[in-house]
Amino acid sequence: MVIQTGTIVSLKSKSGTALNTASALALDRLQALVADGLNAVNQVIIGRMQSPVALIPELAGHLIASGGKRLRPMLTLACADLLGYTGNRHHLLAACVEFIHTATLLHDDVVDGSGLRRGRKTANIIWGNQPTVLVGDFLFSRAFELMVEDGSLKVLKILSRASAIIAQGEVQQLTTAHDLTCTEDRYLEVVTAKTAVLFSAACQIAAVVAERPQFIEECLESYGRNLGIAFQLVDDALDYASDASIMGKDAGDDFREGKLTLPIILAYARGNADERQFWQRTITAMKQTPGDVERAMVLVARSGAITDTLARARHYTNRAKDALSSFSECSAKSVLVDIADFAVSRAF
Amino acid sequence: MVIQTGTIVSLKSKSGTALNTASALALDRLQALVADGLNAVNQVIIGRMQSPVALIPELAGHLIASGGKRLRPMLTLACADLLGYTGNRHHLLAACVEFIHTATLLHDDVVDGSGLRRGRKTANIIWGNQPTVLVGDFLFSRAFELMVEDGSLKVLKILSRASAIIAQGEVQQLTTAHDLTCTEDRYLEVVTAKTAVLFSAACQIAAVVAERPQFIEECLESYGRNLGIAFQLVDDALDYASDASIMGKDAGDDFREGKLTLPIILAYARGNADERQFWQRTITAMKQTPGDVERAMVLVARSGAITDTLARARHYTNRAKDALSSFSECSAKSVLVDIADFAVSRAF
Repeated sequence: MVIQTGTIVSLKSKSGTALNTASALALDRLQALVADGLNAVNQVIIGRMQSPVALIPELAGHLIASGGKRLRPMLTLACADLLGYTGNRHHLLAACVEFIHTATLLHDDVVDGSGLRRGRKTANIIWGNQPTVLVGDFLFSRAFELMVEDGSLKVLKILSRASAIIAQGEVQQLTTAHDLTCTEDRYLEVVTAKTAVLFSAACQIAAVVAERPQFIEECLESYGRNLGIAFQLVDDALDYASDASIMGKDAGDDFREGKLTLPIILAYARGNADERQFWQRTITAMKQTPGDVERAMVLVARSGAITDTLARARHYTNRAKDALSSFSECSAKSVLVDIADFAVSRAF
Repeated sequence: MVIQTGTIVSLKSKSGTALNTASALALDRLQALVADGLNAVNQVIIGRMQSPVALIPELAGHLIASGGKRLRPMLTLACADLLGYTGNRHHLLAACVEFIHTATLLHDDVVDGSGLRRGRKTANIIWGNQPTVLVGDFLFSRAFELMVEDGSLKVLKILSRASAIIAQGEVQQLTTAHDLTCTEDRYLEVVTAKTAVLFSAACQIAAVVAERPQFIEECLESYGRNLGIAFQLVDDALDYASDASIMGKDAGDDFREGKLTLPIILAYARGNADERQFWQRTITAMKQTPGDVERAMVLVARSGAITDTLARARHYTNRAKDALSSFSECSAKSVLVDIADFAVSRAF
């Protein structure tokens, strides 16, 4: 596998495996489009996570500097470019989006008891749960301080609503964990809340700073939301794909945690009595034994659940691309379309 | 000990012991002054903590309905009364203050691994750390949504800054735990950040909604800040007072957790070599044996640290009262002065 030259950030997946070339190309193009803006955003991020309490920038910086793709702030920047916005308010606001994202990752890692993220030890492992929760709170509060500095009540409304929905989605996910009666609809509610809402907010705020009409806001909101759902569906499919060298990601984590994602929901619904007993033991009762991960992968693949999860993802990708149809052709639009394709193509 | 009749909420301390009569009187007067407003605030609180995800109101309601005094929202209401404000914006904003306070309590209980608060099991014990962190995030986000609904960027600025400072103060407290080189100055920084800033914000926002000049904002900010410091100092002193029946609170929790509070800072600074060794073993090395709590109480009392911590508290109480000197006499002012006295008098 060859990484394209000229990449701005390292194109590594969670587990450090190189992404495939097509994927790298789409991300490369996005990064090239927003390179200057992303530098400005990174300056804001580094500058505004400072605190006289040294542990705060140390802990926050560990995650912020750990090779995250900055996908959400890049979306804000690319959407602003799409709208021909020439100011710089979006730099501050894209940093807010990344702060909110980082705060939720820190809290997620505490909630999930995770040990690794982006191939590095998580903050909760290095510094413990206590400062990890509190630094999350700090970044979250700091994000709101930055929004107040920008002064747009509309942006504040979009991002405070997004934050409440994310937390609500995470609680809903907890309450549906291990519950094989979780339907595809409830799964989609969780995915929309915990992942897609921040994608959509990241895109929508570009229309707010560019002072475009409600319709444009709605188009970008829809693009971001559908893109976010597609990304999460593909993530969830990749977790049941056994070939890490192709998929660019270690598999089986969701299974080991007993998380209800679409691959299991479909495989369970389509399974025979014996297979359903397997899922009840491993997911509901959480009694997993050696070999179960491998069997789960076989059952998911054989039921067609991976193929169909990816087909669902493609549906949302197509909706995302169509949400951009009222914009005239330009490099920003072409990159945003590519990124939508990338959401699914990275699985192949 | 007699509880005054006509109290609106139960006047119980953390451990369920009745507070003394003088204290009950001051709180009674505050509650009587703001009774109507507090009902309105409680309506907002109950209404806005709702969510289709049932666990959210269930978990949040457990803490919110658990007999907290609603001191911070009552301060907003009393300050608004002091300024003759006749609108109702402060009801929504007082609820925001209580949501932020509740969110920090939920996260504190996770961070401290607490089992009891206000005499009841904590949410983290009943539902686990995971939803407790996330419901805290939800309440925090919801608070910002409510502020956006009110629409004052000035209020948003005050409360987002307060939230960031609270989180920063909590991280600072973690980094100074077990560290006997912590000075009184550093201790005061932590107290100001983690406790006093939300008191001051609760008071200051009353001046913002009443559209009073900067000077009035500053007076109320100063009242709240000094009151908050006094409250925390007295709390910290009470934790080393062994007679729960007088002090209205179980003692020794801070010692058991190795928390650096002013009583220890003073006792350590004034101690002889043998005593310092005791503190190093029990607080720095956290090697505590039966009888250590009792010895800690004796050492703290004998060094004059309790008396002097309360004297420091009285200093801040006096500053709080003086911050109100530009307001003409009225029942609200008299109640706010009484509450400042109450901050210290509850220790006797």
